[in-house]
Amino acid sequence: MTAPARYARWDGVGIPFRLVDAPLPEPGPGEVLVAVDLATVCGSDLHTTRGRRPSPVPGVLGHEQVGHVVATAPGPRHVDGTPVRAGDRIVWSVAASCGRCLRCRRGIPQKCTDLHKYGHAPLDEARPFTGGFATHCLLAPGTATVVVPDPVPDAVAAPASCATATVAAVLEAAGSPGPGERVLVTGAGMLGVTAAAMAARAGAEVVVADPHPDRRERALRFGAAAAVDADAVAAGDRFDVACELSGAPAAVRTCLDALDVGGVAVLAGSVSPGPQVGLDPERLVRGLHTVVGVHNYAPRHLAAAVAFLAAEHDRAPFAGLAAGPWALADLDAAVAAAGRPGAAPRQAVRP
Amino acid sequence: MTAPARYARWDGVGIPFRLVDAPLPEPGPGEVLVAVDLATVCGSDLHTTRGRRPSPVPGVLGHEQVGHVVATAPGPRHVDGTPVRAGDRIVWSVAASCGRCLRCRRGIPQKCTDLHKYGHAPLDEARPFTGGFATHCLLAPGTATVVVPDPVPDAVAAPASCATATVAAVLEAAGSPGPGERVLVTGAGMLGVTAAAMAARAGAEVVVADPHPDRRERALRFGAAAAVDADAVAAGDRFDVACELSGAPAAVRTCLDALDVGGVAVLAGSVSPGPQVGLDPERLVRGLHTVVGVHNYAPRHLAAAVAFLAAEHDRAPFAGLAAGPWALADLDAAVAAAGRPGAAPRQAVRP
Repeated sequence: MTAPARYARWDGVGIPFRLVDAPLPEPGPGEVLVAVDLATVCGSDLHTTRGRRPSPVPGVLGHEQVGHVVATAPGPRHVDGTPVRAGDRIVWSVAASCGRCLRCRRGIPQKCTDLHKYGHAPLDEARPFTGGFATHCLLAPGTATVVVPDPVPDAVAAPASCATATVAAVLEAAGSPGPGERVLVTGAGMLGVTAAAMAARAGAEVVVADPHPDRRERALRFGAAAAVDADAVAAGDRFDVACELSGAPAAVRTCLDALDVGGVAVLAGSVSPGPQVGLDPERLVRGLHTVVGVHNYAPRHLAAAVAFLAAEHDRAPFAGLAAGPWALADLDAAVAAAGRPGAAPRQAVRP
Repeated sequence: MTAPARYARWDGVGIPFRLVDAPLPEPGPGEVLVAVDLATVCGSDLHTTRGRRPSPVPGVLGHEQVGHVVATAPGPRHVDGTPVRAGDRIVWSVAASCGRCLRCRRGIPQKCTDLHKYGHAPLDEARPFTGGFATHCLLAPGTATVVVPDPVPDAVAAPASCATATVAAVLEAAGSPGPGERVLVTGAGMLGVTAAAMAARAGAEVVVADPHPDRRERALRFGAAAAVDADAVAAGDRFDVACELSGAPAAVRTCLDALDVGGVAVLAGSVSPGPQVGLDPERLVRGLHTVVGVHNYAPRHLAAAVAFLAAEHDRAPFAGLAAGPWALADLDAAVAAAGRPGAAPRQAVRP
């Protein structure tokens, strides 16, 4: 193959990204080569570029993207069992799992003991295509892939790889709330509004709590029955499910306190170090409460995310969640824009 | 009916129980009259008599017992669907549930909004038979009943009503651990050794933590692969499941800290006010941990408890867990014995 290929090399906090040309690889056994159509800047990428998340240096960041299969070794299959073929438009999981270790066998491949995370590996200049901020990505064996129907826009499909699939895992962990159930979502960012839309579509009554009025306004456009300041929740509302998607310690408190008898709090936003939150064992016991942590997801959640977006992408303003697109050469500007207060939940990059 | 009937009236902390004769009631619609064969003094009864658990005064205590059906209205059925008949040897749930409220419909009848708890109701002198410390108990509609096979001794069967069924609920909440899974149990009292036996029978490797050497020794006789001091757990062992059955705040800490990735901590011992325990949200999230509270149980757990005791009662020294029996007239002495350090986990009373 002779097509030009390049990646944005990350050299550490405060150092501009640098575009590097590299030969396009041939897929080895079990591998799939994808041309990245659009990547979005996730909150984890921001944590990395700000030095709040340890990450190998140098490296290639990015793990939320959509692309087309350029070439594939024989063998790889999508989550639904169909063979991967050149030309398939796909999203893929944030990591590849071995499928053999104890954790994989127990159904938590996202915690595989030999996990390979996209956008989070040390740079191997001979095999550099390991992140979304590049023209191509070489998918390792054990990567979950799902075909994206054509009508779903790139900017809507890309976040399926991380945000949307994580939300699918969150709602499954919450017991898949539906009609007659009240769901609290803390945080009206990318995950929060997706959770609101997904739970509302399942028939639940969703209340979103966020300190920012403009974010609350956005939540209402994604199916929330109400959007309130967190203090309003503390006033006494009780919920069957509380999804913490902001990462704010105060929001964890809000979720624990908001549970009705038999309620489930799912925490997914707390992915960086923070203060402990007081748990009252007697209240948990007498209330039959459940508190569960979700981090990343399993392949079925990626399939659920794509199915949801395929059905709902034009019923709520999902396309408006991503600003841009920026060129790969402007990745520094895209990341800076992503970090500005009041920014859109995602900045898109088109390599 | 003219048979003598009496109950032990409780008049509050520090006041001796008083035996009161009363006419034997006829079962009204949906009710079942049972003659109590043997009742055991549960930890909750101790909390009540020590003033650590608010309870109506006067009242009739006791909610762990086995008895024979004396008479039944038409209609009541056991948990397995068979009709209740005079002569059936049964255990019954700690409470009667309405079956119609939102919580009952959602599968948590133990939190029914019109719950009637045995051994925990204000005395109605016209209908006093509402607790186990009496010659008879009148079961209200919505009480779960399970027939106890003859080979199960009274002293083994009585705790099924509370301790054993709660443990069945705990292990279900833990995901029914089995072969290849490591289970930590904190507390080697009635619930702890029962949990050890039940989880070991299911094939799990069970470690029991308890500060008292004699209690640790007992745990080994109930199927624990090891019995250790809590400090030994803190040293670094990790578990798929941790069951907190002691109520000690330090043990809650031990259970949270002992979870492996994907692990589940079930708290059931913390039924009186205590200090908060610090929860690290990031650790919960990244570890995919679950913390779940269990209080009382649903009818299926009572059936599981009886099935377990029927199969296993003579493979571990369950019969030795209850001292006595005491006469109903000696209930004060039985309660005093139950509260002594180093006492057997249960004191039995034979009305």
